[in-house]
Amino acid sequence: MEALLQTDLSAVVEGVNMLWVLTVTFLIFFMHAGFAMLEAGQVRSKNVANQLTKNLLTWSVGVIVFFLVGAGVSNLVGGTGFAESFAYINGGSAAWVSWLFGAVFAMTAATIVSGAVAGRAKLRAYVTYTILLAGVIYPVVVGFTWAGGFLAEMGFHDFAGGMIVHGMGGIAGLTAAWVIGPRMDRFNDDGTANVIPGHSLSFAVLGTLILAFGWYGFNVGTAAAPLAEGGTELADFAYVGRVALVTTLGMAAGAIGAAGVALLKTGKVDTLYVANGLLAGLVGITAVADAIVWPGALVLGLLAGAQLPIVFEFVEKRLRIDDVCAVFPVHGSAGIMGAVLFPFFAVDGFSVGQLVTQVIGVGVIGLWTVAATVVVFGAIRALGEARVTPAHEREGLDTSEHGVDTYPEFGQPDGAVADGAGVRTDGGVTGTRVERTNNGENE
Amino acid sequence: MEALLQTDLSAVVEGVNMLWVLTVTFLIFFMHAGFAMLEAGQVRSKNVANQLTKNLLTWSVGVIVFFLVGAGVSNLVGGTGFAESFAYINGGSAAWVSWLFGAVFAMTAATIVSGAVAGRAKLRAYVTYTILLAGVIYPVVVGFTWAGGFLAEMGFHDFAGGMIVHGMGGIAGLTAAWVIGPRMDRFNDDGTANVIPGHSLSFAVLGTLILAFGWYGFNVGTAAAPLAEGGTELADFAYVGRVALVTTLGMAAGAIGAAGVALLKTGKVDTLYVANGLLAGLVGITAVADAIVWPGALVLGLLAGAQLPIVFEFVEKRLRIDDVCAVFPVHGSAGIMGAVLFPFFAVDGFSVGQLVTQVIGVGVIGLWTVAATVVVFGAIRALGEARVTPAHEREGLDTSEHGVDTYPEFGQPDGAVADGAGVRTDGGVTGTRVERTNNGENE
Amino acid sequence: MEALLQTDLSAVVEGVNMLWVLTVTFLIFFMHAGFAMLEAGQVRSKNVANQLTKNLLTWSVGVIVFFLVGAGVSNLVGGTGFAESFAYINGGSAAWVSWLFGAVFAMTAATIVSGAVAGRAKLRAYVTYTILLAGVIYPVVVGFTWAGGFLAEMGFHDFAGGMIVHGMGGIAGLTAAWVIGPRMDRFNDDGTANVIPGHSLSFAVLGTLILAFGWYGFNVGTAAAPLAEGGTELADFAYVGRVALVTTLGMAAGAIGAAGVALLKTGKVDTLYVANGLLAGLVGITAVADAIVWPGALVLGLLAGAQLPIVFEFVEKRLRIDDVCAVFPVHGSAGIMGAVLFPFFAVDGFSVGQLVTQVIGVGVIGLWTVAATVVVFGAIRALGEARVTPAHEREGLDTSEHGVDTYPEFGQPDGAVADGAGVRTDGGVTGTRVERTNNGENE
Repeated sequence: MEALLQTDLSAVVEGVNMLWVLTVTFLIFFMHAGFAMLEAGQVRSKNVANQLTKNLLTWSVGVIVFFLVGAGVSNLVGGTGFAESFAYINGGSAAWVSWLFGAVFAMTAATIVSGAVAGRAKLRAYVTYTILLAGVIYPVVVGFTWAGGFLAEMGFHDFAGGMIVHGMGGIAGLTAAWVIGPRMDRFNDDGTANVIPGHSLSFAVLGTLILAFGWYGFNVGTAAAPLAEGGTELADFAYVGRVALVTTLGMAAGAIGAAGVALLKTGKVDTLYVANGLLAGLVGITAVADAIVWPGALVLGLLAGAQLPIVFEFVEKRLRIDDVCAVFPVHGSAGIMGAVLFPFFAVDGFSVGQLVTQVIGVGVIGLWTVAATVVVFGAIRALGEARVTPAHEREGLDTSEHGVDTYPEFGQPDGAVADGAGVRTDGGVTGTRVERTNNGENE
Repeated sequence: MEALLQTDLSAVVEGVNMLWVLTVTFLIFFMHAGFAMLEAGQVRSKNVANQLTKNLLTWSVGVIVFFLVGAGVSNLVGGTGFAESFAYINGGSAAWVSWLFGAVFAMTAATIVSGAVAGRAKLRAYVTYTILLAGVIYPVVVGFTWAGGFLAEMGFHDFAGGMIVHGMGGIAGLTAAWVIGPRMDRFNDDGTANVIPGHSLSFAVLGTLILAFGWYGFNVGTAAAPLAEGGTELADFAYVGRVALVTTLGMAAGAIGAAGVALLKTGKVDTLYVANGLLAGLVGITAVADAIVWPGALVLGLLAGAQLPIVFEFVEKRLRIDDVCAVFPVHGSAGIMGAVLFPFFAVDGFSVGQLVTQVIGVGVIGLWTVAATVVVFGAIRALGEARVTPAHEREGLDTSEHGVDTYPEFGQPDGAVADGAGVRTDGGVTGTRVERTNNGENE
Repeated sequence: MEALLQTDLSAVVEGVNMLWVLTVTFLIFFMHAGFAMLEAGQVRSKNVANQLTKNLLTWSVGVIVFFLVGAGVSNLVGGTGFAESFAYINGGSAAWVSWLFGAVFAMTAATIVSGAVAGRAKLRAYVTYTILLAGVIYPVVVGFTWAGGFLAEMGFHDFAGGMIVHGMGGIAGLTAAWVIGPRMDRFNDDGTANVIPGHSLSFAVLGTLILAFGWYGFNVGTAAAPLAEGGTELADFAYVGRVALVTTLGMAAGAIGAAGVALLKTGKVDTLYVANGLLAGLVGITAVADAIVWPGALVLGLLAGAQLPIVFEFVEKRLRIDDVCAVFPVHGSAGIMGAVLFPFFAVDGFSVGQLVTQVIGVGVIGLWTVAATVVVFGAIRALGEARVTPAHEREGLDTSEHGVDTYPEFGQPDGAVADGAGVRTDGGVTGTRVERTNNGENE
């Protein structure tokens, strides 16, 4: 009888673990709706359908690649034998739930890139890169870390993927944007930059809030990661509350940090900076949410938000890279910051060794991501397949790549903003008004 | 003590079951936001408020009817006695949770129809049909199947409602669209069709991703269906992982299948086809998600996506039915396909008997749905109540039925696209640009 | 062995409780996306970014204040000693989960206010009020009630915050709108009102459905409230099903009630009334969802929906208060109605004593909220900081407060609707068409 009860109890625990993993997996999947809206809102109306299609195909193509190849590659790189590395493919219920939990993290990394290369990357170039990211580039990073590779053995700490997922995605995006070059009219010959505002702040903020909702699954749900493979021990929930608290404080402080810097710089509270600051706060806290003291979450969130406008401007004005949706300041630099600053706010106190390990981990992940992205997008560019033609870019990718008009009843359906019209000399923040020069001309 | 422990354990299991059923029920409810956005995005801006109101009232009117009448009718048809059939109405906590779990499936079937008859069906005609669908038409289908009727006894397999919910809804929509006729200007006298693009691909894709999110609840959550009525045995979670995996692979393959066919046909990747293909992949997998091998999910998803552009064109050009939001290719033919092809991909291997049963089940559900819809909408049409007047249709249903303008600051507020202007001769894919003829005329 | 099993079982129950609390907390958090869209849709396009920023900052600023101050104040007011009142701040996992569960309710109350004062309140005035609401005004209400204060001792019944959260928020919004005065051009000298329609019914309905989704967490999740602090007894789920059922019936009846009154008054089914009616039905049921008979939910929902158009018109035409997003009819009067009418529909039967208690509770909460809001916004107004300048109001708050244009490619980017243009003499319902007078003028 006692043995029977114990068996029953184990089965209950296994069921509970699985339900929790599934619940948070669905939340993380929903982040694709967040990315789709966030990115669509930040591009011009002539490129919206292209951005949305890229998001749909990132998930659709990427998740199949990650099932057939990517997850196995991460196991291989992590040191597991070949047969065992791919055993999940026919592994049955618990193995599949566990795989799916990993897959939604992988697809998060993949989808970040599309925001950086918006408005000029060819669809097939982007899809090709996505296949390689889902099949090799991201899995190698997971192999080094979560799957047990050398960074894991060194003690590199990244709880839910602040560096492994977001940092990696942000660095990949920046690199890709650098390799394929800026949108036409984005930079002037005299070294100044033009602001090309997105078409809908409403979509951008909606996307932000969907992402924050899904992020609770991303961070808090990670507490369940070790349980996904049918473990019969209940999660140690001693740190779930910490994760939930610091995720909340981190995002709040991130929004305030970005708002504060925007206010200091321009006297106004730019809406997109607040939204992206909230996301940067989330990124910053993600690597460390299980083991940071809560005042540290406030400080780290504030820093992650505050660096956003500064890094955005640095990328634009110094690096002269056209990172359309600010994916590097949001995911890249904030992810790096969280991973590197972790030892200063750790529950277990500061340790120089941990700091060195964190820096090495960030460096390795960053170098690998830059190198792989340069090789892939460099090869695509060398083949002349990286960008649409200037005529297509001017017309908008919706027409040239997809044959659609996203808003056939609104706006300037003829892609009328051309030849530098529709952009203005820099000086403002993102999202500022574009001058319209074609009123009455669009018959 | 041991007995006490066993009692406690049973109570825990009952509680866990209830929490899971509630969680997935909420996810399925959220699909109404998905349908609202998906459909609103696919109609013209002058009909958006009408579409949104229909969605709100489908849920509001339908769920009350399903509580007072529909759920009981399904039990009755399934062979339960009268008193027992309606016992849930005062059944207490577990019975109500179980009812609500069934209700969100019923309302999914109901809301599909509104997308097919958009832009010309009178609000009261639609609401009348919704009442009958929620009270009788759908409950009869459930009575035949999930509630234990003759199709259940024959062994008809429909796990989560690929045919019972989506197939039924898609067939009802096509039939209703046929009975009430196309929107004016949709077809020309020479037999060609005009494309009338929706007003916002952004909303359509947002709706798609919300639906996919809710669909995880729809499919994976169905694993909990037998537990909803306060069962004290934990779910057999051996197949939950399969459901989650094949739902993922099916939707991904559906998007790719539709994208591929669009690319072959037009050389471009139509965004709406990708989105609807993803949904068709979900529909295709829904009937079989508990018992299909994963390579079968890839094939079935691919086929469900690939048939979408083809069936859409067949409905438009051969049947000349104006199915505005493509609900038949997405929900109808994909649902039929999944139910019929099930035996070819079944975990337990192919069986001719199962194939025959599946065909019979699809046929019975299809015939009943067509017949009931023809009778109801035919009667409404005979009373002259099916459609708004041509003047109101031209003006838009938002003004005539609701007295509102959805976007008073944008677009063509005077409903200026009239007399065939604003549509163009066919040849393109859905969502293509409409020619604007009224610029400068809308003072 | 038996003791060990019992220990294990307790740990499982604790884990399950925590997972459920977290799940519903995330759902309630997601209501911020609902409020953002609902409110953004109901304001003019020139004020959208301002509304979105206010929503982002309500959460970001408010939740930090509620962590450092507010939650402790509610404990203090509820009669707990000082040290214990703030013990959650370093309380560890279970205490933090419990705090976050309370915080999402607090932030719901806070965010309601922004909809009432849209289009003219200065950002810093609004943020100042939010800080005081999150730190003192709302915590005092919770102190009187849920935290064990004198209204709790009297037996005031408010299950999930129909009065404590929504009623309080709606009353605060109405008061704030009264103190800072209406938008320019909202009322005419002859006593008539002008309708200033929102810019997007699509966003308003999307927000409505997101809110309804989150509301299931708000109401059903409240069943888990006593468990949040690491309780090792499983929830008494006997009433969870009732909460889920009456929440469903209440929202459905609310939509129908509002639709019916709109139909009777104008012959048309105003979309925004249906959406807001659904929300009013939810508010009406929230205070009583654990202890109301289901026919009572239908009646209460119907009344809550039906009062919406009537109270909206009363506020507009008699009180002449510019409650932009109808927050008082939706949250205020519906919340009051639910709390006061509770005894008539109670599972335990009618009781005069309960009725008196409910009236006292509503009166106390209402008076406190009005008084505190008058003091705070009155002081801000006296400092000349309550409203933006008339020029900025005309131009739109997006430009003046945030330096952005929400839709740079659409609409009238120059804030062209001015001097009474763009509004029309009353008579219609909300959301009706605005006359455009500036076509061709916006170069």
